[in-house]
Amino acid sequence: MGFSKPIVVKSPNAMRRISDSLRAKGRKIVLVPTMGYLHEGHATLMRRGHSYGDIIVVSIFVNPIQFGPSEDLAKYPRDFKRDSAICGKEGVHYIFNPDAGMMYPEGFQTKIRVSNLEKGLCGDCRPGHFEGVATVVTKLFNAVKPHTAIFGEKDYQQLAIIKRMAIDLDMGIKIIGVPTVRETDGLAMSSRNIYLSPDERKTALTLPKALREAGRIFKTGERRTGVLAGVAMKVLSEVSGISVEYIEVRARDLSIVSELEKDGVILAAIKVGKTRLIDNLVLSTSKGGR
Amino acid sequence: MGFSKPIVVKSPNAMRRISDSLRAKGRKIVLVPTMGYLHEGHATLMRRGHSYGDIIVVSIFVNPIQFGPSEDLAKYPRDFKRDSAICGKEGVHYIFNPDAGMMYPEGFQTKIRVSNLEKGLCGDCRPGHFEGVATVVTKLFNAVKPHTAIFGEKDYQQLAIIKRMAIDLDMGIKIIGVPTVRETDGLAMSSRNIYLSPDERKTALTLPKALREAGRIFKTGERRTGVLAGVAMKVLSEVSGISVEYIEVRARDLSIVSELEKDGVILAAIKVGKTRLIDNLVLSTSKGGR
Repeated sequence: MGFSKPIVVKSPNAMRRISDSLRAKGRKIVLVPTMGYLHEGHATLMRRGHSYGDIIVVSIFVNPIQFGPSEDLAKYPRDFKRDSAICGKEGVHYIFNPDAGMMYPEGFQTKIRVSNLEKGLCGDCRPGHFEGVATVVTKLFNAVKPHTAIFGEKDYQQLAIIKRMAIDLDMGIKIIGVPTVRETDGLAMSSRNIYLSPDERKTALTLPKALREAGRIFKTGERRTGVLAGVAMKVLSEVSGISVEYIEVRARDLSIVSELEKDGVILAAIKVGKTRLIDNLVLSTSKGGR
Repeated sequence: MGFSKPIVVKSPNAMRRISDSLRAKGRKIVLVPTMGYLHEGHATLMRRGHSYGDIIVVSIFVNPIQFGPSEDLAKYPRDFKRDSAICGKEGVHYIFNPDAGMMYPEGFQTKIRVSNLEKGLCGDCRPGHFEGVATVVTKLFNAVKPHTAIFGEKDYQQLAIIKRMAIDLDMGIKIIGVPTVRETDGLAMSSRNIYLSPDERKTALTLPKALREAGRIFKTGERRTGVLAGVAMKVLSEVSGISVEYIEVRARDLSIVSELEKDGVILAAIKVGKTRLIDNLVLSTSKGGR
C-alpha cells in the first residue's frame, strides 16, 4: 500500500506486453474497470482487489460506445490527476488509460451482445448501452489479461451481463461483485452525483428511501414482485421533480417472476432534473436483508 | 515431427490450464481451428504452423451455432480417428475437441458480430453464420490462448472477419491466412466435397474454371468488377446442374468497388445438387496472378 505512484499505460498493446510479462512471472492480476472521476465506491473495489491478487490495475476510460447520442458523454466528469492520486493511495500498480482513438480506430465494427440479460431495465432505456459495455470490457480484459475483475453491484444488470459473458466466452476470468457504497445519507455513490444541484441532491435521496421501503415490506413476508415494486413506486411518486424510468423487482439472476421464491432484487432508474440515477437493493431473508 | 500422438483435450477449462502453463514456460502456441474431417488443406495449415511457434494445437469442433436450421450440421462428416492420425503425422501437440454441450451450456447467450464485413456474400446466404463463427473462434482463442492462429483463404470472408475481430477486440493474436489447397484437377479442397456424386464432382469443376477465366481476363487489363464477375458467371451458366448463390469481384479488403484499383478477389458460392461449394481467386498483377 502506501503512496506509490501507479504506472500509467496508454495503449492496449503496451498494456498487453506488461500483462504477458507479469503472468509469465506468476503474478496474479486484478482489474478494476472504471470511467474515472473516482470516488469511495471505486476505492472500495481497489481495496477488495488486494485480496484477489498481487497486481492491481485500474482502467480509466470513458467509453464512447456505451453512451447514446443524447447522453452525457461530452460532459462526463474527468479529473485524471485526482484519480491518479486515489489510485496511488490504494496501492494500485498500473492505470490503464487509453484514448478513444486507440480503442476505436477507423474501421472498428465488432460488437458483443449478451442477448437475454440486456433486455429490460437499463437495456430498454439505453439502446446499445450494454453492447458497448460488453465490448469495451472484453477489450479491457484482452489488454489487461486479469485473473480477477471487480465491479460494483450498483450496476447490477451490467454485473450480471459481464458474469454471463465471461462464462459464455470461456474467458477464464473470475468476476467479483462488490456491494454498493453509499454516502452517509444513503445515496449510492456515483460519478454522476456531481451533476445534482443541492435541491436535486435532496430529492435524489427518495430513491434509496423507496428501495428500503420495499425491503421493509419484503421482510414482513411480502413476495409478490408487483406489490413490492408498487410500494417503492408510491414513495417515489409522492415527491415532485422525479421521473421514474423503471422500477422492478426480479429474482437475483434477473429472471422475471411474479412472486419471489427466496431472495430478489429491486432495481430502479430515475431522472432528477437532467440527471439519470440508478440504484438497487438486494431483498434477502438472510443477514438482515442484504 | 514424426508420428507422436497428440494429447486430446476435451474441456475449455482444461485447455486453458494447459495454455497458461505453456505460456508461463515461454512456449509459443499456434492454433489451427477446424471442424475436423481433415484433408490436405488442413495439413498445410498445420505445417505452416510450425514456422510460427513450437506448440501446435488443432481444434476439432463442428460448431452448431454457425449452421442454419436447414443446413448440414447433422450430416457434416466426422472421423476423429483419422483426424487424430493426420494431426499426429503433422507433429500436432494437442487436439482440442470439446463437445457442444460444454461449449454452449444452458443459458448461453453471448454473440460477437463484425457488422460490416459480415454483410453480403456468404453473410447474406447464411444469416447468423458469421456471428456463429466469430463467437466460436473467440471461445477457441480464449481456451487455447494462441500467439498465432492459422486459417485457410478458401473461407476468404471468414478470414477477413476474424482478422478484423482480432484487431477490434485487442486480442493480440496474429492471424495468418494460407492460400487454398486444390485437388490436382483444380477443385478447392473441402470436407464437403465428399457429398458430391462422381457426376456432381465433375460439374463442380466449373467453379474453379470460371474463376480462372475471370483471372485470365483480369490479366488482359480488365478492371471493371461487373465485367469480371460476368465473365465467370457466363462460364457457370453454360453448365447445367449449377445454381449460383453469388459471384462477385471485390477489392482485397472486400470493399465494394465498380473498378479495381489494383488487386482484387473474385468470390463465389454455388450449389451442385444439394451441396454448397465456395471458392475464390485473388486477382493480382504480381507473381503471375496470385
